[in-house]
Amino acid sequence: MDRREFVKSSLVGAGAAAGLSSGGLPAAAAEKPQATAVLKLCSQDSRIPGKSLKEKAENLLKWGGVGLELGAIDVNRAKQARKELEGTGAGIAALCYGYIPLIDPDEEKRRKGVESLKKALEAAGEAGSTGVIFVPAFNQNPQLPFAEGRKVLVGLLPAVGEYAVKCGTRVLLEPLNRGEARFLNQLAVAASICRDCKSDGIDMMGDFYHMFIEETSDEGAFLSAGKYLHHVHLASRQRNLPGQDERSFVDGFRGLKRIGYQDYCSLECGCKGDPMVEIPKSFAFLKSEWKKATV
Amino acid sequence: MDRREFVKSSLVGAGAAAGLSSGGLPAAAAEKPQATAVLKLCSQDSRIPGKSLKEKAENLLKWGGVGLELGAIDVNRAKQARKELEGTGAGIAALCYGYIPLIDPDEEKRRKGVESLKKALEAAGEAGSTGVIFVPAFNQNPQLPFAEGRKVLVGLLPAVGEYAVKCGTRVLLEPLNRGEARFLNQLAVAASICRDCKSDGIDMMGDFYHMFIEETSDEGAFLSAGKYLHHVHLASRQRNLPGQDERSFVDGFRGLKRIGYQDYCSLECGCKGDPMVEIPKSFAFLKSEWKKATV
Repeated sequence: MDRREFVKSSLVGAGAAAGLSSGGLPAAAAEKPQATAVLKLCSQDSRIPGKSLKEKAENLLKWGGVGLELGAIDVNRAKQARKELEGTGAGIAALCYGYIPLIDPDEEKRRKGVESLKKALEAAGEAGSTGVIFVPAFNQNPQLPFAEGRKVLVGLLPAVGEYAVKCGTRVLLEPLNRGEARFLNQLAVAASICRDCKSDGIDMMGDFYHMFIEETSDEGAFLSAGKYLHHVHLASRQRNLPGQDERSFVDGFRGLKRIGYQDYCSLECGCKGDPMVEIPKSFAFLKSEWKKATV
Repeated sequence: MDRREFVKSSLVGAGAAAGLSSGGLPAAAAEKPQATAVLKLCSQDSRIPGKSLKEKAENLLKWGGVGLELGAIDVNRAKQARKELEGTGAGIAALCYGYIPLIDPDEEKRRKGVESLKKALEAAGEAGSTGVIFVPAFNQNPQLPFAEGRKVLVGLLPAVGEYAVKCGTRVLLEPLNRGEARFLNQLAVAASICRDCKSDGIDMMGDFYHMFIEETSDEGAFLSAGKYLHHVHLASRQRNLPGQDERSFVDGFRGLKRIGYQDYCSLECGCKGDPMVEIPKSFAFLKSEWKKATV
């Protein structure tokens, strides 16, 4: 079986010259990968030992990583972080914001949420970051039921997406397991929201920890995410370092290869043992899983 | 909520704590196809010209079809239909029931819905059918919001699934486009419900017409459906015969091949022109699409 060949030749025919309700092609089916996928290992900065961002970056690079994911920082901190990392070779991946209310039943709270998200996008732009991860509602937050919340999001996000594009970055929707956030649990659902927003600034991510709970197929989920996928979180089944339990990454990595994934895969997890020893082991494990993911 | 703090402090993870993961591998990923996929062309009986079921079967077989999908029939009609098709070589695919309320806010209506579904399963068993397709709520029907409705379904369906197994058939969940039924729109979502029901009698189907509207990847959707997929509806983008507009089936058929699909692909669509001429053309088109779907 030569899947490379079929990616080159046969995806072209899928839905050719068609038009969705939205006037486009089914995104993932219509586009063949522009390039061969790459495994760009990365980590949340809090996971990496080091007294400064620079020291963290140096450790990460030594272990084969290439980027750092930061938290909810503002424009000033973004400028500073960029300066601290200058010359290290480490990029700034996503900014992982927490809760920003966008599906609150109260319209005024949603309006404020949009403002907060725009501020986050300004910081992400300043940092040269790939995007802002935010959660429109955890289970304990007030929220509209799914169908209504989806409509509200698809109404609000396109303008935010345009703002993101102006800032040189993007919004990243993150499906979480329903124990944390019932609103958005599967990658295919997030992808359908991205498609309906019709904005280059509205994209999504996937998290191997949540995917283990919610998805029936890692590869299927990433194929559905397709061109909208611009960040990936890495964690084992127990939310420790990849390789610290039985969680396999092969099926998911096959999906990333199929879609020609170009962005970061970033640790968001705990660690059993000494990070200075265990993270390099985990990166080696991930590289070997990537190799096993034949397409 | 500071998500990063949460991740750091929660080694077990909210999903596992909530009892969400069944402790196994994601279903589709864990199973290799047991056999090479087959294209078993089939049609709803109302789509095929003929004065009797037997005559319809004879036409269908002449054109390369192998099964008929029937409507909401009872046990007596099921016995009769089976008899009428005896010796023709045509099998009885799914029974396509309409609305059976299972996510109604009124518990008594749900209880009656379960009884109706069981009656349908008895008829399906008698007919030797692959399963009962039903819709728990169209948009105009009273219904619980998604998260609550899903919980109710996952509560009710396992017992119904056991009943289906006893009848020698199964329940088939059908994702529809949100213009018809907002409750269940994507195959990955239906698959996650099937997984959570943990019953061999609870499975699902996919419909190329609805998938064109809702899915971002036909192949991704079928990979996610995996072992739960036991029926497929065929229709073009405009819900006519496959081949009567630009809708491609290649990406979806690739998905069916990847999961080793063994069940029927059945016409549920209109027809531009004379069915006696157009259906054989459509079947030839589908066979050629199947061939193009290299894996």
